[in-house]
Amino acid sequence: MAGNTAGELFGGIDVGGTKILAMVADNRGSVVATSKKKTKGELGFKSVCERAAATLLEAADMEGLGFADLSAVGIAVPCPVLPDGNTAPAPNLQGWKNAPLVKTMEMLTGRPCFAENDGNAGVYGEYVFGAAKGADSLVGLFVGTGIGGGMVFRGKMVVGENRMAAEVGHIIVQEGGRKCGCGHKGCLEAYASKTGMARRIAWEIISEGKKSSIAQNCPDGNYATVKSSFLKEAYKAGDAVVVDALNEMAHYLGVGVATFITLFGPNIIVLGGGVFEALGKELLPAVKESARQRTWPEASFKDTKITLAQLGDHAVGLGAAAYAMHSLATLQGK
Amino acid sequence: MAGNTAGELFGGIDVGGTKILAMVADNRGSVVATSKKKTKGELGFKSVCERAAATLLEAADMEGLGFADLSAVGIAVPCPVLPDGNTAPAPNLQGWKNAPLVKTMEMLTGRPCFAENDGNAGVYGEYVFGAAKGADSLVGLFVGTGIGGGMVFRGKMVVGENRMAAEVGHIIVQEGGRKCGCGHKGCLEAYASKTGMARRIAWEIISEGKKSSIAQNCPDGNYATVKSSFLKEAYKAGDAVVVDALNEMAHYLGVGVATFITLFGPNIIVLGGGVFEALGKELLPAVKESARQRTWPEASFKDTKITLAQLGDHAVGLGAAAYAMHSLATLQGK
Repeated sequence: MAGNTAGELFGGIDVGGTKILAMVADNRGSVVATSKKKTKGELGFKSVCERAAATLLEAADMEGLGFADLSAVGIAVPCPVLPDGNTAPAPNLQGWKNAPLVKTMEMLTGRPCFAENDGNAGVYGEYVFGAAKGADSLVGLFVGTGIGGGMVFRGKMVVGENRMAAEVGHIIVQEGGRKCGCGHKGCLEAYASKTGMARRIAWEIISEGKKSSIAQNCPDGNYATVKSSFLKEAYKAGDAVVVDALNEMAHYLGVGVATFITLFGPNIIVLGGGVFEALGKELLPAVKESARQRTWPEASFKDTKITLAQLGDHAVGLGAAAYAMHSLATLQGK
Repeated sequence: MAGNTAGELFGGIDVGGTKILAMVADNRGSVVATSKKKTKGELGFKSVCERAAATLLEAADMEGLGFADLSAVGIAVPCPVLPDGNTAPAPNLQGWKNAPLVKTMEMLTGRPCFAENDGNAGVYGEYVFGAAKGADSLVGLFVGTGIGGGMVFRGKMVVGENRMAAEVGHIIVQEGGRKCGCGHKGCLEAYASKTGMARRIAWEIISEGKKSSIAQNCPDGNYATVKSSFLKEAYKAGDAVVVDALNEMAHYLGVGVATFITLFGPNIIVLGGGVFEALGKELLPAVKESARQRTWPEASFKDTKITLAQLGDHAVGLGAAAYAMHSLATLQGK
């Protein structure tokens, strides 16, 4: 029994391209129990929903709880969620075009369900329970293979009228520049993500003939797949190629941060994701300095706090739970 | 008497660096009367406020009206307005640091007054009475010597927590690129304003030795001050230097538009200002095509309407009047 929890309980499920992380959390953001499963996206939409519900039930079961003990369930998915609760196509999952996500999850759990995109959910988690708790507005940037994230403005997620916006990694910071995974050129993600970093590393090793320990670590040359823990080790050892690449990442992330302050002037900008979990303290000063040099008006820079995310791997699941909690309250007119 | 007007009347004052335009408008956005005076910013804050009030009274007087016939007065100024109604410093006006703008205007007019930054007011005018009427969200870009504009999201202007954000011309689109008037490099304004265009023209004429009719029109070489009507004439006559420069402007404006759709996904993006009043129909297709090629996700491009502003020179004054109208209604709990 969840005798040590603070109050109402909610389910939060983070459905990623490769794994599902489900959790039971209370209304103050304490995680009561978690469970994991592989996503197995190749089995199709309905199967992924069943696996998501089963993962949540496993987590609840650890504390002697069932679906009936949850006031509501939030699910975060790697694609946009439309206002009717159906999904837009997910690049990494099969058969998710216009799939009835909310309806299916409500049938499987018997609870009110609410769904959101994973990047938005992660930012919402930091907003309600993490680094941006108490802020009125924030921008979150999660740096991994790509750049995810989003924006909250006066308590509402900014998702665009078609719910497909807030693509914070795809603002153009270098028109005509480096090719991005999205097919365009010069996106923030093409410079300030692991994929962007990999392009710089490949250039230094192949074109410049420089030596780096990353060449042994990634013999296939796919430097974007390197673990953040390795990056930390190489950075601390002074591996010049890795140091250059991470400095470039921090520099461009600062360009993005400056643009977000210039446009939105949020209370807080939260930096998270694998790279910043590993090297946040090391990279944060360079990101801030780059942003400070580019924010307009310059006086605005000091009005936005730039800080590291606090919820780590739990951000998306906790954000889904928080979104369910707030959406339920809104429905109930609270 | 204003017997032909629809209902309640509001004052709207557009205080620019060189001139004041005041108007009386009704609650449906019809302009009842206007008047103009020079700003004479060198006379100081109080004098500018007195001139602003006098200009409004002149406009009202033309219709046999006085301040007492106005439900409220909105004033738009070329600087941020803080939540207490005081101003942040105005680059083009002397003695406006922390100046009690709302309080002074209320003393001078005896009416409830509300103040806003001019770029925000212009966008708000298009939102309430112009090209974006009925939209839930929009971004406005006004192209002149610089780029002004702003954003409205669910009926609220986006101004940043310190009311100094929404600097839409100072997002960075070309890191390390062309120097901007703000001192930074690679801002949208450095490419997609008259000032940006002037840099391109100077380069083509001086470095490339190309001929252009603009050289005769601006013998001092300050191409940023050229009138938009001349640009239209030269563009239509096929002056290659001017055509290149305006095409570059449209290209980069499309980069900015793409970033706004990618981030914000608004119902509508409104393009206005002198350049687009003169050459809107000619430039709009190139802006759209550039934006289409850079919006992510690509499918989002079609969900945002990109269109020309409708209120011309009246946008800022009407926006100020609309802001006064809505702020008064909010105060009265309507």
